[in-house]
Order: sequence, then structure tokens, then C-alpha cells
Amino acid sequence: MLAGIEVVRTLNDHGIQTEAPIEVAFWTNEEGSRFVPVMMGSGVFAKAFTLEHAYAAKDSAGLSVKDELERIGYVGPEEPGAHPIGSYFETHIEQGPVLEDHGQTIGVVTGVLGIRWYDCTVTGMEAHAGPTPMALRKDALQVAAALMQEVVACAHRHPPHGRGTVGMVQVHPNSRNVIPGRVKFSIDLRNASDALCDAMDADIRAVAARLSAESGLPIVIEPVSAYPAQPFHADCVDAVGRAAQKLGYSHMPVVSGAGHDAVYMARLAPAGMIFIPCKDGISHNEIEDAQPEHITAGCNVLLHAMLERAGVAVG
Amino acid sequence: MLAGIEVVRTLNDHGIQTEAPIEVAFWTNEEGSRFVPVMMGSGVFAKAFTLEHAYAAKDSAGLSVKDELERIGYVGPEEPGAHPIGSYFETHIEQGPVLEDHGQTIGVVTGVLGIRWYDCTVTGMEAHAGPTPMALRKDALQVAAALMQEVVACAHRHPPHGRGTVGMVQVHPNSRNVIPGRVKFSIDLRNASDALCDAMDADIRAVAARLSAESGLPIVIEPVSAYPAQPFHADCVDAVGRAAQKLGYSHMPVVSGAGHDAVYMARLAPAGMIFIPCKDGISHNEIEDAQPEHITAGCNVLLHAMLERAGVAVG
Repeated sequence: MLAGIEVVRTLNDHGIQTEAPIEVAFWTNEEGSRFVPVMMGSGVFAKAFTLEHAYAAKDSAGLSVKDELERIGYVGPEEPGAHPIGSYFETHIEQGPVLEDHGQTIGVVTGVLGIRWYDCTVTGMEAHAGPTPMALRKDALQVAAALMQEVVACAHRHPPHGRGTVGMVQVHPNSRNVIPGRVKFSIDLRNASDALCDAMDADIRAVAARLSAESGLPIVIEPVSAYPAQPFHADCVDAVGRAAQKLGYSHMPVVSGAGHDAVYMARLAPAGMIFIPCKDGISHNEIEDAQPEHITAGCNVLLHAMLERAGVAVG
Repeated sequence: MLAGIEVVRTLNDHGIQTEAPIEVAFWTNEEGSRFVPVMMGSGVFAKAFTLEHAYAAKDSAGLSVKDELERIGYVGPEEPGAHPIGSYFETHIEQGPVLEDHGQTIGVVTGVLGIRWYDCTVTGMEAHAGPTPMALRKDALQVAAALMQEVVACAHRHPPHGRGTVGMVQVHPNSRNVIPGRVKFSIDLRNASDALCDAMDADIRAVAARLSAESGLPIVIEPVSAYPAQPFHADCVDAVGRAAQKLGYSHMPVVSGAGHDAVYMARLAPAGMIFIPCKDGISHNEIEDAQPEHITAGCNVLLHAMLERAGVAVG
């Protein structure tokens, strides 16, 4: 957003007029820290969900988006999505460690990974750790631990962009001397296309079925939510790559593992994203850090990519 | 305890006098549900810890053992442990599934397993599940899951009585789309001798060191508490086996994985235990269940084993 303003200011400073108008969007509630769903403004604009749905969202104090927008005077008359878009670009810190790891300045984002979320429950038999010999146990955690490792193995079986994470674990009864009778854990699978996400889904379900058959313990995998993969438009991806090349910045193709407003905007118009490195891949944290020269490079690439798409040749 | 009373009543009913006196002990707070330490009365009697230590223990409401014993009139004048003991027997449901699994009526308990408790912490690097490729992760849960499986493998490497349990797991930050930065879990290792417990301790520490070296993630294993193994006296074990044999009950040698007052009493005198089956190995639960014929058998074996040790031949 600040990058967009800097681009427009630079154009004005140099008296450059583009064939198509360049506009800067301030999307409401991309992060979703206070209200869900995330990417709320762009989601309404792209009709991923209705304005009424977004308005009705409440924070933990019970205040609604509608009430709060009215209170601060941000409810406008325009019909969401009625505004025409020719191309859409977004600049962002990577929120991951790839650019830093490769020593590259610009990430040419080819798309955003699809996401599949699940809850997995393994049911065994709760029993005392002392009196129950190993051969007579139905230890839910041991089967769960094997499946947790398979979530990661599944990601490795679907390279280069496959990702598999178990982030949340609940053990029941979670007592030092009781063999766990039930373990529930989250599964987060991501990949660059919906077909690859489908393949990972089938993979982990087959592994779970095998582990269940081998152990005799029921394993249930329930879908929690799913977000489709969103490849960016080749014209916009290429425009970003050409801009980085022309400006002499080191660059590489990358995927975005996190969602951005560009995901929804890509449903309306050719879209692309520009990533710059952030220290240790850390974001949404007080120690988030990006180098000034990388920020400058990101803004310059945004400027040149937008100028190319807006119909003005520079340099 | 009820079995002991039944034995004494039966002796009285038949007018049988023994060479040594037979007494029934009611030990205070074996279970430890309200006050810790567990096996409190026998522990004080056997000088495993002091009377003052037991008196000072408080429940969750802040009431002490001393105050509560005074309130109910159970503080007596006798010096704990001053009472001489010739032999000690205890009858109990197995609290495990072995007898039921083998279809045996009487478990001739050869001893109580030693216990080693640890807390294990694996430290990785918390990161977003989306933007972080597999190769750049430091996933604490994946290393922890491998070690959790090794706890069980370690038990299998030390048969027949080795037991390994992970009962409690805490994942940090425990969020669906965050790669875990830290995982803490309990380890419970048990075996029939202190030497075997030592061997399991060395085994799991070596495995943890290898997993730490392979993953580059620090693993810390901290001892929480340890209870020595307690083999029972051969004379008492044999007396139980002979009684079961003479009475025609099916029987097998078993170990106790849980602690009992007999563990402390075995420090003062030859001791032994008699187990009977319980349904599905379940105890400390409202569905705990033992068959009347098994309870009868357990009491009869207790009677005959005590008579043998007390110096009266019957039958």
C-alpha cells in the first residue's frame, strides 16, 4: 500500500502520464486479526463472499464490522466490485525464508499455494502406563506420532512446493502415567495447484488407512476448510520478472504460501505479486525486519511492472 | 484390606490358631488422590520419608494430613515402624490386562517395576506453515514425534517387562498454521530391575542425542522422579504359587507395574502380592470390575499363603 503511494508520487514527481489510470487500493482487514474472514475487503470486492457477510462479522467484544465502519466514517456509497480493473499488483515481504536463503532481492511470485486443513483423531484405549504390557496397548499417541511424520513425508513426496504441517496437538487425558486414549491433531497441506492438493489429500488418507489397519486403531480425518490454489497471470508474472531484470536486481520465481488480497483480485483481472526478503522469514511479529535497499528495490519493480501494464515504456 | 479381614474371620470361624500372629493393616492414603506422596502410611512405617513430611502434606483446599487425622481422631500414640513384621502379603486386582488376556485366575507377583519419569523438551524454530518450505524448517514436533516412537521402541528393546509411555504432550504455540517451535512431553520408563531401568535410561538418552545431531535441534531430557524396582522375597512368592497350586487355581507369574504398600513393606520384611484379574485391566474408574469367583480365589490364596508363613499347615 505504501509502495503503491510511492509509485504514484514518483510518477507525479516526474510528470509521467500513463495510458491506463493507476490507482492504489487500501483493503479493509487483510490480516483478520480482529475480524474473520481474512482478506475481507478484497473478498467482498471479488464476490468471494457477500458484503452482508463481512458487515456481520463481530470481534471478540461483540462489535460488528458494519458498526465500526460507520463509527469511523468508512462506509461509502460505491458498489463493491463495480470498479473496473485492468491489472493488479501487490508488493509484500516474503513472510518466509526462501529469498534470504538464496541471497536474492526480488521474488517473482508465480502464484499462491492452495490450502487444505483437516482435524485428525486417533482413538486408542486409555490405560495405566505401569500395569499394561507393550503388547496389550492401544496407544493412540504412537499411531498419531507415525501419522504426524507422514504429513511431512507426504509434502516431500509432492515437491517442490508441497508443504505439510502438524501445528496443533491435543492428547487425552494428557497425564504422565496414562497411555493416551485419544489424540486429535491438525493437518495443514499446501501445494501449487488444486490437482497437487488433491493428490496430497489422497496420499495422506491412504497412509492413514494403512496405519489404522496395521494398528487396529480408528483414524478419522475431517476436512476443516480449503482454499484453492491461485496461479498468477503469466503477463503479470513476466512483467515483474522483466522489471527486476531491467533494474539489475537479483531475482527468482517463488510461490506464496500465505494468502494475500492479490488472491481474490486474480479472479477479476490479471494479477501478480512482488516479494522482498524479510529477516529469518519472520512476519506478524515485533521483530519483523526488511532492509531499506530491499524495500526500495520492491517499490522500483512495482513501478516498472505497473508502467508496463499501464502502457508507458520507460528507461 | 477386606481380604485380610476375611482371612482372619475364616480363621476365627474354624478356631485355627497360628504360631505367629496374623494382623490386618489399614494403610493411610495409598492412592494419593487427595494428598501426596502416595503410599503414605506404609512409606512412613518403612521410613521411606518422615512422619513430619507426611503430616505436612496439604490437599488442594490447604488442609493438612495432620489436621485432618486429628479432626477424625486417627492420630495414635504408636511409633511408626516400631511394630515387628514377620512377612507381609497384599491382595489386589491386577490393574492391567495380563491375567485376563492369559485366562489365568491368580497372578503370582514376583516384584514391582522400577519407574523413571522425565520431561523432554525439543526446541525448534516457530514459523508460518505456508511460506516456509520443508527444507528450511526446524519443526520441533517432527523431532519429538520420532523420539516419542523411540520411547516405545526402547521398551521393546528391553523385554519382557520393559515399558515406555509418552502420556503428556505440550506443543508451543499449538496453532494450526504455525510450525511448532517447542514441544515438551513426558517419558515414563519402567522395568523389573534398577539395572534394566538404567539401561533404558542410557538407551533413550543415546537415541535423543542421535536425533538431536541429525536434526540440529536441541533435545533436553530432565529427570522428574524415580522409584526403584522392588523384587518380592522368594519365600513369599513361592508361598503364593504353592497356595494357588494346592487350591487348583490357574496361575502365572506377573510383575506389578503400579506401586503398592507392599513395595515399602518389602524393605522391612519378606513380602509378596497376589493379583486377580479385572475386566479390561481397568482400575481407578467407576467401571472397574472383578468377578466374585476371582475375589474368592484371591482371598483363599491369601489365607493359605499367610498360614504357610505363620506356621500352620492346613489341607
